[in-house]
Amino acid sequence: MNLSDPNSVSRVAIIGCGTIGASWAAHFLGRGMQVTAWDPHPDGESRLNAFVDKAWDGVVRLDLDGRAKRENLQWCNTVEAAIDGVEFIQESAPERLEVKHELYSRFDTALGPDTVMSTSTSGLILSELQQGHAGAERYVLGHPFNPPHLIPLVEVLGGKETAPEVVDWTLDFYNAHGKKAIRLNHEVPGHLANRMQSAIWREAIDAVNSGLASVEDVDAAIAYGPGLRWALMGPHQIFALAGGEGGMRNFMHHFGPPNEQWWETLNSDVKLTEDVVEKIVAGVDEEQAGRSVGEIAGERDILLLDILETLARTRQSLRDK
Amino acid sequence: MNLSDPNSVSRVAIIGCGTIGASWAAHFLGRGMQVTAWDPHPDGESRLNAFVDKAWDGVVRLDLDGRAKRENLQWCNTVEAAIDGVEFIQESAPERLEVKHELYSRFDTALGPDTVMSTSTSGLILSELQQGHAGAERYVLGHPFNPPHLIPLVEVLGGKETAPEVVDWTLDFYNAHGKKAIRLNHEVPGHLANRMQSAIWREAIDAVNSGLASVEDVDAAIAYGPGLRWALMGPHQIFALAGGEGGMRNFMHHFGPPNEQWWETLNSDVKLTEDVVEKIVAGVDEEQAGRSVGEIAGERDILLLDILETLARTRQSLRDK
Repeated sequence: MNLSDPNSVSRVAIIGCGTIGASWAAHFLGRGMQVTAWDPHPDGESRLNAFVDKAWDGVVRLDLDGRAKRENLQWCNTVEAAIDGVEFIQESAPERLEVKHELYSRFDTALGPDTVMSTSTSGLILSELQQGHAGAERYVLGHPFNPPHLIPLVEVLGGKETAPEVVDWTLDFYNAHGKKAIRLNHEVPGHLANRMQSAIWREAIDAVNSGLASVEDVDAAIAYGPGLRWALMGPHQIFALAGGEGGMRNFMHHFGPPNEQWWETLNSDVKLTEDVVEKIVAGVDEEQAGRSVGEIAGERDILLLDILETLARTRQSLRDK
Repeated sequence: MNLSDPNSVSRVAIIGCGTIGASWAAHFLGRGMQVTAWDPHPDGESRLNAFVDKAWDGVVRLDLDGRAKRENLQWCNTVEAAIDGVEFIQESAPERLEVKHELYSRFDTALGPDTVMSTSTSGLILSELQQGHAGAERYVLGHPFNPPHLIPLVEVLGGKETAPEVVDWTLDFYNAHGKKAIRLNHEVPGHLANRMQSAIWREAIDAVNSGLASVEDVDAAIAYGPGLRWALMGPHQIFALAGGEGGMRNFMHHFGPPNEQWWETLNSDVKLTEDVVEKIVAGVDEEQAGRSVGEIAGERDILLLDILETLARTRQSLRDK
């Protein structure tokens, strides 16, 4: 295998153009790449275009270097045409093992010898997906956080048959093209970010179920408190800063013991019984106060794009200093 | 007791002017209030002024209505002078029971009959603090998230002797004056936000300790992923939106089971052994790549103020629509 320079990749294929795939397409167009796309759905092409059109304002706002090219999107009628000559494939087919294997059997003959194939799967195991396929050494996990054209995170992992250099290449490729890619060293259920989300959600559910606070107040405790800092830096770095000049070692010394005490009282046995589900659903209804999911999602998107643009501009100006 | 209208409070006292108290002073000055302040430290006044001066740029940026008045700060040489005639006291004395009790014994004679006394304590129990003090029914918890002049969250809770109307009044007061106050219904170690922070940190530590990812990558998994949304909305609301038009009920149906499965594999037995501490400290060192805590904290403050201002402006314009 003779992988291209990850910094100068110019052609990528999007295979599977549902919500995730279409958002990936918007992202790569935003980086000025040539994007070929395929999906088996009869309305695939129009759905993809509708998604990209809707996303485009956001893509342009986050494109501080002026590279975005909407016209670089090319629909293909076959998998084979879409992946022909590309250096990289982002596969976002439905989350079913047999669907992916059937798709990959078409890659067996058509995949270029130096093409990297990255799957967006959130729930399937890469080692099981790549098994038995030609080019398995160039199969890698590239799990995005939804929607990929806005949220930078990609979790990268190699399966049993993935060549280590392909994992390195994929990390470099994503990071060179507007994503924040992180390296996972082994396969665990939920990868990493979803597990951490799940951990905080468990505590958030227990706070409501134990009567400590309402759904609305639990949500506010994050969004008007620690959530504001987590948009900037992760939990380790934030706590290291709380240690002052002594950093993380000082933080551990002073705040390790209370955190250990709190861990002992966290409820690790939360179950989503019918009663718990009803409490949370009722609490969310109250929080939403009659506003529709669509209205609140619209507000989330406006606010998200605002802070993403602000963070991108400020970080660029800090770098330029 | 005859509490004033929480919306029209104009005089507050800051008792204890360390990092937390000084930041509270900056906050209330930013809301145009008359602020009296007292601290027993010989350099208390100059330290307070230095803090407020440094914070002032941020206070003004977040003051979209143009109310901030730096000149409204008045230093007092005694507790009694500071709390004379105020409608509200924010107490941020050192976190030691005997220190607080000694201070409160001075309130016993000097506290006005309609003054509410709110303590910033993060680790002590209000019911133990208020015990034996005159005016205990007007003692309440108002636990901020640091720094209070930037981060809106305040956790409000009544102790055993607190009058329910005082809790309601305190919530209204904070919410009317630039804070986001939430109601806690019972006393638990760490209140609420710190417990949720602790829950995610436990998982973040386990990810490093189990070799899943580096400190730097674990941090990036939050700050470039779910952390971006938690700056906008809490975990329940964010997941409800992920349920589409079916909202939280639909999310629970589809994503409840995988979350329950992840919970079963989360490590609830993390301990901060020397080995674990060293791994995290080394990982943070690597992440910081030679940059000082001061430099990174400076960057955090710049980014935080940027997103706070953006969120404040956008939310105001959404309300005005």
